[in-house]
Amino acid sequence: MKCKICRQKAVAELPQHRMALCQPCYLDWFPSYAKKTIKKFAMLEPDERILVAISGGKDSSALWRVLVDLGYEADAMIIDLGIGDQEGLGLEGEAYSSTSTEFAREQAQLLGRDLWVIDLREQIGRSVPELRRGQRPVCSACGLVKRYFMNRAAFEAGYDCVATGHNLDDEVGALFGNVLTWDTHYLSRQGPVSPLRGERLIKKIKPFCYFTERETAMFSLLAGIPYMREECPNAVGATTITYKELINRLESQAPGTKRRFYDGFLRERDLFRKQEEDVVLQHCLSCGMPSPLETCGFCRLVGDVSVTRFGALGESREESNA
Amino acid sequence: MKCKICRQKAVAELPQHRMALCQPCYLDWFPSYAKKTIKKFAMLEPDERILVAISGGKDSSALWRVLVDLGYEADAMIIDLGIGDQEGLGLEGEAYSSTSTEFAREQAQLLGRDLWVIDLREQIGRSVPELRRGQRPVCSACGLVKRYFMNRAAFEAGYDCVATGHNLDDEVGALFGNVLTWDTHYLSRQGPVSPLRGERLIKKIKPFCYFTERETAMFSLLAGIPYMREECPNAVGATTITYKELINRLESQAPGTKRRFYDGFLRERDLFRKQEEDVVLQHCLSCGMPSPLETCGFCRLVGDVSVTRFGALGESREESNA
Repeated sequence: MKCKICRQKAVAELPQHRMALCQPCYLDWFPSYAKKTIKKFAMLEPDERILVAISGGKDSSALWRVLVDLGYEADAMIIDLGIGDQEGLGLEGEAYSSTSTEFAREQAQLLGRDLWVIDLREQIGRSVPELRRGQRPVCSACGLVKRYFMNRAAFEAGYDCVATGHNLDDEVGALFGNVLTWDTHYLSRQGPVSPLRGERLIKKIKPFCYFTERETAMFSLLAGIPYMREECPNAVGATTITYKELINRLESQAPGTKRRFYDGFLRERDLFRKQEEDVVLQHCLSCGMPSPLETCGFCRLVGDVSVTRFGALGESREESNA
Repeated sequence: MKCKICRQKAVAELPQHRMALCQPCYLDWFPSYAKKTIKKFAMLEPDERILVAISGGKDSSALWRVLVDLGYEADAMIIDLGIGDQEGLGLEGEAYSSTSTEFAREQAQLLGRDLWVIDLREQIGRSVPELRRGQRPVCSACGLVKRYFMNRAAFEAGYDCVATGHNLDDEVGALFGNVLTWDTHYLSRQGPVSPLRGERLIKKIKPFCYFTERETAMFSLLAGIPYMREECPNAVGATTITYKELINRLESQAPGTKRRFYDGFLRERDLFRKQEEDVVLQHCLSCGMPSPLETCGFCRLVGDVSVTRFGALGESREESNA
């Protein structure tokens, strides 16, 4: 198997692109393809300041690196969710969040960029596992917490947009779930760009939406990016993982299936948009962030906890020494 | 496991309905559920004459039986497609079509209803395997041939509608394929009822659209319906079979998934309808049947063969002796 570009020995096969690449060509191709994706969806203006929402995992870590390499002003934020922090118990996922945060700090030093570390316990007095209600995994609460803080941090610190590391598998898995239930509300909103809505709901972009999970993993590996290899212990058995497995089976039978599914959806998405009325947003009476109701979903989730007031995240910033 | 109705020992578990039934209760439940489905989608008026398009397999054979038992005027038609008719060669699927036709004749005698047997070789001088072009299976050509003759036979013989044995798995498998490619043309048309369009495009109904494949198989077995157990040899490896397997995996994890997917689609289907303009149909210059183009898809498929002219199918009728 030879590299399509330089004819040297290839190390990475890319079935959806019907090609294989060697290490140096892969390290060239990957950021240039991300650049194309950013351009295709008009995600960014050259001077926009980006806050990359990172988890310490391969996708978001690679995204931060690529955006910085492409010349963007990109800092990052990570939330210490307190998952697996009962150390010494020999539990699966032990020190998951704190280890993730350490990877993020290492990456910040390498890139010479600022990192915002938001400690969930400091903010709301509870970790994600402590948000658990009953036996079900806390994934939906965790997602809400993450979306809330990424938007709030970007708004408070004056970033123009939040970039997340969602890859094609993530997008297609979520799309598949939304199609199975014909959730037109989510279908009308899913996509590579969520535009700014009012001054407090910051634009969100997904520059890796066209890379498969395998492609970003390969980049992180070949580029020597420090990242957390362990999966979140709460994700085990998640429905979206089943969806991803099913779609991977289709992809292996017919490479390009994921991309066609996603592109076809984006082509037809307006059908769902027309159906949905735009929700009017107000400012949450409790925290001041945008909300369709008087109290936002985050404040309803954390309940009686007095949430750190709007404007107090500044202390979370860790400036790079580089 | 006890029967939900009579508390005797159950023989059939119905996870999507969260119940189990004994044989007699199953034989009561199944037709009454079909009746409910017919009513829900307003498929039939009591006095409408139905032509059941049968293949000799479990779904369509059970459908014919159920419609007759429910008191409808229901005859059937089968097309001898000439699949596997090179007898004595020891091929898989040997005598597939002729055996299917024999099952249909047996069923016609049992029900005391007329059967139309349309011999594809007589009609167009070729069997389905002889329609094969290159290495790909002939499934799409076969589907076209079947849809053409079921409509034409119903029209020529004056039936009010064609009923097909499509079950929930068929519907969901097709829907899944159409969603994967976001084929809004098919999405706008798929469903349990395709209304009459002009006098020559007969109404089509799918009274079994809410039964899983397992449920119809169970009925055919418990009701002692004569049917062909072998699958069509051409269907091996068909993409829709992969889709069905994937969806069955989701269904087994969360019973009711198929039904929710299908019902959700039907709820939102108008989105796709609005997008699609109604195609104006004309009469095919070659055979007289409805077509969006001057020559219909069937006549284009069979090409230079001179198609039996409109009105000549009457000889295919086999009246029941009963």
